Amino acid sequence: MERPAAEMEESWIANADSWIRTVRAGGIASRRLVTDAAVVEAVAARSPRRALDLGCGEGWLARALAARGVEVAGIDGSAPLIEAARRAGGGSFVVLGYDELAADPAGAAARMGSDHDVVVANFALLHEDVAPLLRALRHLIAPGGALIVQTVHPASVPAPYRDGWRVEGFRGFGEGSGEDEASAWAPMPWFFRTLGSWLTLLRSSGYRLEDLREPLHPETALPLSLLLTASPEQP
Amino acid sequence: MERPAAEMEESWIANADSWIRTVRAGGIASRRLVTDAAVVEAVAARSPRRALDLGCGEGWLARALAARGVEVAGIDGSAPLIEAARRAGGGSFVVLGYDELAADPAGAAARMGSDHDVVVANFALLHEDVAPLLRALRHLIAPGGALIVQTVHPASVPAPYRDGWRVEGFRGFGEGSGEDEASAWAPMPWFFRTLGSWLTLLRSSGYRLEDLREPLHPETALPLSLLLTASPEQP
Repeated sequence: MERPAAEMEESWIANADSWIRTVRAGGIASRRLVTDAAVVEAVAARSPRRALDLGCGEGWLARALAARGVEVAGIDGSAPLIEAARRAGGGSFVVLGYDELAADPAGAAARMGSDHDVVVANFALLHEDVAPLLRALRHLIAPGGALIVQTVHPASVPAPYRDGWRVEGFRGFGEGSGEDEASAWAPMPWFFRTLGSWLTLLRSSGYRLEDLREPLHPETALPLSLLLTASPEQP
Repeated sequence: MERPAAEMEESWIANADSWIRTVRAGGIASRRLVTDAAVVEAVAARSPRRALDLGCGEGWLARALAARGVEVAGIDGSAPLIEAARRAGGGSFVVLGYDELAADPAGAAARMGSDHDVVVANFALLHEDVAPLLRALRHLIAPGGALIVQTVHPASVPAPYRDGWRVEGFRGFGEGSGEDEASAWAPMPWFFRTLGSWLTLLRSSGYRLEDLREPLHPETALPLSLLLTASPEQP
């Protein structure tokens, strides 16, 4: 594994407690204002019976979907986050790394099911080499099902507008939560992708783009996220 | 026709002389540095025998393609621009408004030919109701051919990030050309479209996106344009 990818995965273990407190307190304004509702709506619009929450973290999205009657399985590489998700309930949660899933799609399908109407990744595709994972996920999607990806809007990130690793310092996360912000977080490397690269990634991984939405900040009217719905191409 | 669309079309008659002088002097930095070469390369990459230059203006792109052995026809709604294109040569140039083309695709195909390997619109889709034009253009594209659109990159325009009419004042155009800038130009209304709206427009007009490029400014590393290649869907 590349060094930044390993650091990124470690950050989700190191930051687990801060993350759980922040997310559950609504401490990330863009999520509270816009992107949480946007991804729930995008999934719900497909009226799924079963959904797989990829990189589910502490499980808020799984719980939101379960509250709408969806049967949800969540996977994440961070054991402490999965532990927190299990305690909160709402779905079945499994520690499963992306590399493991990508290396053995048939095994993952046997374990998690191959009949998910939606696989959803909410700000959860943060590494560089995502194509093997996306190709593997096709084994877990039911016929007629879809992959839904919410991610950072490429226009919302400072130049250079080029694919590459960036670092999230979590400044401003958890404002008002009483958290000692600066000291509480390990920086997280994440891989920035241009719009063109996102579309190329989907195509080269065997998906066809069905829908692209750009939820806006209600005050600045700037796009807060890119919300992609794609269906596996017929082989 | 809507008022801003009419004003926009009128601006291309009122501004014809300023536009011709500016474009021919290389007075628009983004074009000189990046986007001119990007659109020529995108068209040439398909090795077309025949191309239709939609909104050809004074004809620079037609001449650049003709120099590469492409047989080019250019159409534009502005008579003075077509007159300038004819004088400079390099292709066959016809005054033809978009509304006229959209209203009678069969007539346009009879007049211009139905066997264009590429129809290219370089910063030339500036009105709101573009779908009828794009649907009509399918009659002019040869089997296996493509529509290539270069347009303003949505991320390069100030908020709000919402479809709507904007006004180009041509400030900074023709810098260094000795032009009296402020007085020489009539403002041009143009319709801003988000990325999602561009993709929806293509899909709803009967095209499938084949390629999306985002040429960058060499110094700021910000995207200067959106360069879309789309092919007519099989009916």
